[in-house]
Amino acid sequence: MSGSPIAPPATPLLDRVKVPADMRNYSGEQLRQLADEVRAETIHAVSQTGGHLGASLGVVELTVAVHAVFDTPRDRLIWDVGHQAYPHKILTGRRDRIRTLRQGGGLSGFTKRSESEYDPFGAAHSSTSISAGLGMAVASGLKGEPDRHVIAVIGDGSMSAGMAYEAMNNAGASKAKLIVILNDNDMSIAPPVGAMSAYLSRLISSRPFISIRDMMGKLAKLFPGPIERAAKRADEYARGLLTGGTLFEEMGFYYVGPIDGHDMDHLLPVLRNLRDTELNGPILLHVVTQKGKGYAPAEASADKYHGVQKFNVITGEQQKAPPGPPAYQKVFATALIAEAEEDDRIVAVNAAMPSGTSLDMFAKRFPKRCFDVGIAEQHAVTFAAGMATEGMKPFCAIYSTFLQRGYDQLVHDVVLQSLPVRFAMDRAGLVGADGATHAGSFDIAYLGCLPGIVLMAAADEVELMHMVATATALDDRPTAFRYPRGEGLGLELPKRGTPLELGKGRVIREGTSVAILSYGARLQECLKAADELATFGLSTTVADARFAKPIDADLVERLAREHAVLITIEEGSMCGFGSIVMQHLAWKGLLDNGLKIRPMCLPDKLIDHDAPKKQYDVARLNAPHIVETALAALGREAMAQPARA
Amino acid sequence: MSGSPIAPPATPLLDRVKVPADMRNYSGEQLRQLADEVRAETIHAVSQTGGHLGASLGVVELTVAVHAVFDTPRDRLIWDVGHQAYPHKILTGRRDRIRTLRQGGGLSGFTKRSESEYDPFGAAHSSTSISAGLGMAVASGLKGEPDRHVIAVIGDGSMSAGMAYEAMNNAGASKAKLIVILNDNDMSIAPPVGAMSAYLSRLISSRPFISIRDMMGKLAKLFPGPIERAAKRADEYARGLLTGGTLFEEMGFYYVGPIDGHDMDHLLPVLRNLRDTELNGPILLHVVTQKGKGYAPAEASADKYHGVQKFNVITGEQQKAPPGPPAYQKVFATALIAEAEEDDRIVAVNAAMPSGTSLDMFAKRFPKRCFDVGIAEQHAVTFAAGMATEGMKPFCAIYSTFLQRGYDQLVHDVVLQSLPVRFAMDRAGLVGADGATHAGSFDIAYLGCLPGIVLMAAADEVELMHMVATATALDDRPTAFRYPRGEGLGLELPKRGTPLELGKGRVIREGTSVAILSYGARLQECLKAADELATFGLSTTVADARFAKPIDADLVERLAREHAVLITIEEGSMCGFGSIVMQHLAWKGLLDNGLKIRPMCLPDKLIDHDAPKKQYDVARLNAPHIVETALAALGREAMAQPARA
Repeated sequence: MSGSPIAPPATPLLDRVKVPADMRNYSGEQLRQLADEVRAETIHAVSQTGGHLGASLGVVELTVAVHAVFDTPRDRLIWDVGHQAYPHKILTGRRDRIRTLRQGGGLSGFTKRSESEYDPFGAAHSSTSISAGLGMAVASGLKGEPDRHVIAVIGDGSMSAGMAYEAMNNAGASKAKLIVILNDNDMSIAPPVGAMSAYLSRLISSRPFISIRDMMGKLAKLFPGPIERAAKRADEYARGLLTGGTLFEEMGFYYVGPIDGHDMDHLLPVLRNLRDTELNGPILLHVVTQKGKGYAPAEASADKYHGVQKFNVITGEQQKAPPGPPAYQKVFATALIAEAEEDDRIVAVNAAMPSGTSLDMFAKRFPKRCFDVGIAEQHAVTFAAGMATEGMKPFCAIYSTFLQRGYDQLVHDVVLQSLPVRFAMDRAGLVGADGATHAGSFDIAYLGCLPGIVLMAAADEVELMHMVATATALDDRPTAFRYPRGEGLGLELPKRGTPLELGKGRVIREGTSVAILSYGARLQECLKAADELATFGLSTTVADARFAKPIDADLVERLAREHAVLITIEEGSMCGFGSIVMQHLAWKGLLDNGLKIRPMCLPDKLIDHDAPKKQYDVARLNAPHIVETALAALGREAMAQPARA
Repeated sequence: MSGSPIAPPATPLLDRVKVPADMRNYSGEQLRQLADEVRAETIHAVSQTGGHLGASLGVVELTVAVHAVFDTPRDRLIWDVGHQAYPHKILTGRRDRIRTLRQGGGLSGFTKRSESEYDPFGAAHSSTSISAGLGMAVASGLKGEPDRHVIAVIGDGSMSAGMAYEAMNNAGASKAKLIVILNDNDMSIAPPVGAMSAYLSRLISSRPFISIRDMMGKLAKLFPGPIERAAKRADEYARGLLTGGTLFEEMGFYYVGPIDGHDMDHLLPVLRNLRDTELNGPILLHVVTQKGKGYAPAEASADKYHGVQKFNVITGEQQKAPPGPPAYQKVFATALIAEAEEDDRIVAVNAAMPSGTSLDMFAKRFPKRCFDVGIAEQHAVTFAAGMATEGMKPFCAIYSTFLQRGYDQLVHDVVLQSLPVRFAMDRAGLVGADGATHAGSFDIAYLGCLPGIVLMAAADEVELMHMVATATALDDRPTAFRYPRGEGLGLELPKRGTPLELGKGRVIREGTSVAILSYGARLQECLKAADELATFGLSTTVADARFAKPIDADLVERLAREHAVLITIEEGSMCGFGSIVMQHLAWKGLLDNGLKIRPMCLPDKLIDHDAPKKQYDVARLNAPHIVETALAALGREAMAQPARA
């Protein structure tokens, strides 16, 4: 935990920059040096915290240049996704806390409005920046502040999302003063996919970087030129001369580029000209950068140090996690491969997360049966639905939080047609350092309301294997199963899962007074709580529901009938599993007779990034809270009501 | 209600076509006549049922041509949205039921898998067809059926949705055998918006229809040519000669067009050639059509008879609904205009529904403050969020069912940042003739789980006005309010709404035995039920919750404490309002003491299209069901349990 052994770098110019205004009188040469210092500081900081290093290193020069040229925070600078914003944080009043990145109580790993006025729009999910920026630009126009600049920096990977296209389609038809900087590093988290990515590669390869002399000559002719030149003619001139025929032009943008995003001699004059132009309408500046730039171990790495653990600055060697049980995601992929060996109708779909979902393992074994669609969850879901109509057995592996992007498709294309698409929902529940934006909090509610879908949650990694087998076997309706981030319990794994009986839970421990019905991976906490309750003389039943839909009616009714207290617990928001249980019991009249039911779920608030265990303390979903809840329900504590509700 | 007075048209050729195979030996001339007969039949049928006439008339020739050329149903034909599929239904075994369109028990107004093997993918929401088609094409490849054709027909309006772009981006990078027919009528529901639409107009105006001689000459050279010609050379040849430089080409499609979608002499040979080509990779055929084609009153109408009531075939005059109270949507727009007169920060956003949301009224009054973003709900939400960061007061008016498309944006960009974006959710609850695909069933659940959002439902149109005022006044957090399809109660409307006290409901009628807590527009049914319960000697409290979040804790607790039975009722799915109430009461210990709680909501199944009143009978949410529920809870009926659960 001691982080990098080497001392922080010497940063004489950076030391004089608390906020961007402090560097605006720096010369180009000084800004170049400042960028070098920011890079060194970023590397040193992330070596101590871990985090998204590669993306941040790719935009060091761009960050310095934008803040030097534009009047932030009055001008709005939006970082798409926001995980590349560490240099931005260093330069915008947060350097003193940069070594708290992603730590409990520390800086967020993404941009966040509540953290700084320099973060006009928070992010974490991708491809939102153009929409947000267009909203800001339009608002500035309506408020009579037309001189405000709005800059959205978006990566090429984020351009695979439909949302970015929707925004481009609207911006391109408007006269909004919006500068979109396409940060093209040919890489998001994984290697790029899709026709747009191929197009960008062709664009770059067909156009060498504009020489600075040509660029300046053209810009000089175009931008704040003689007033007498009619705006319309300038328009035509610009389109013909500087740009011409790119897809972005066709979509209504002024296209400028490509330029070298690590060369201050290009960045600064181009940005100054874009700042000073009086042309109306959106501009797309195409900047080519290198992920991991300027740090040899990152440049040499296949994933360009996309997300790293703490590491040794000199060697680049990352701290290894102590050897432990395999992560849930790997168990999932292993289980799916085992099924797919026996059933050639199984196909797998992921949305730009081959490594995060471990479907890279599946792709290695079955390259033709694995599809990475890019950041395109909407398409992922309906593409899978299309395959299902032809008798394939598609598994969509999408994090719980990102499945929100495919919600309508899941409802309209899958559930309404009762198509057997399987959703493997990784990162269910609280997720640690990535915080609230990545928490898988809502899927039980947003799926629990849908008719005919089968919902499961894995209590441990063996259960996950069984659920993969169950989903494989169920071929007449949609299925979704959730599992947490991180490691399993270390249980011995079977070669292949065994299909579970549909809609049947299991009783883990029989008792008489208190019943705890767990849905998902809180089961171990429930068993601990049962042990603790025994010391109070309370005999506790612990059951694993396995299914939220269809609910195990027999089990739920029996638990209600035979216990004084029934606690449900889940790693999800309100309106989820506990609600399904209560809905059932209410209509069976089983809440009429004095059962003390206590539905434990995530509290109705956002939970900041921290270690997962601490997050579950904040959420009050650990064993002591279960004990406290049971005792309070029975009036066995001074405290009659736990501090919830 | 007797429909058109004129007799069905004479249709000698159509009478011999039960399924598409029956027309495959027809000559071109016969197919032309068949199309005329299909058009007459479509007009006559819709004159008796009402429905989406304009879109269907625009694709009559295309429908005949595709079915004549391709081997449906073995070849898969997908209609995007599906509301233009009436001619398709007439030709695919459903002519005998075509006059039951959109009627209870009759044909769906959209394509539907369960209705016909000729509907390989159901639709209703837009822009899903390319994803589904790509899934089918990929599956055919995996199954070793490479000769199967997949054809997706998508309108230009649907191309504004990000989902279509995601699919194009993936299809364009694949070698899938997929034919996308872009049905370009420069019109979806409303006039088109966005840069893509402008691009398509330029494309058409810059390229006269290819002459049939030129087209055939080029196609002959290109398609099933001598085998010795290397595939790669054919690729290059095709790109250079027939297409060249369109945006679709850049996205990896073979672009063919534009061609006249009403000219069989063009459609048939082009489609035959596309069928017979051995080129790999997706093709985009750009077809120009006219919405409402061939029926003078439709052609002359501004909306091209997009959605019509029953009408007189000769005059085109539509049945007027009997004069009644204004629809909720108009009350919403009126209320918003009243607020906006006083507050110039109010702006309005809709997604291709200016008329359906009545925001066309707002746009007329405040043209610069109203934004139609096209079919682009994701962008709509985050665009509004961007405006909110700049101090504007955005109202997003989106149907409940379509807001599913912007769910992640609502969670991630609005709720997580607690931005004051207002969601006006029209068409909440069951919606009648449009059926399950358009039902606003799930919003209470998918929003109820989110922290910090204010949720309201309007019991009547005056309440809706108050909720618009409440949302205007609440400027530090997100707000969403729902209201049903159709007419209000006919209440006298104030000039402007009055902000409601946050999180406070209202008691409409005080009683002692049974409490009914209504959320939304079932309130009138609750009052009827209370009258009926009085005849059983049961004194009934009726309350209007107004808010689901924050819930009125005092009211809910009082109702629980002071009544033997508490019924909640809402026009939404399980995991919604009733769950929020139960969650609260459970933690307050107020379910521990014998309260008989009965959460009434939509049943956990899909409800087909029918008259709304009948749908609510199926859903068991009318007054008699409330009465039955209360009596059963009290053991006052032989039937101890209502048939729910």
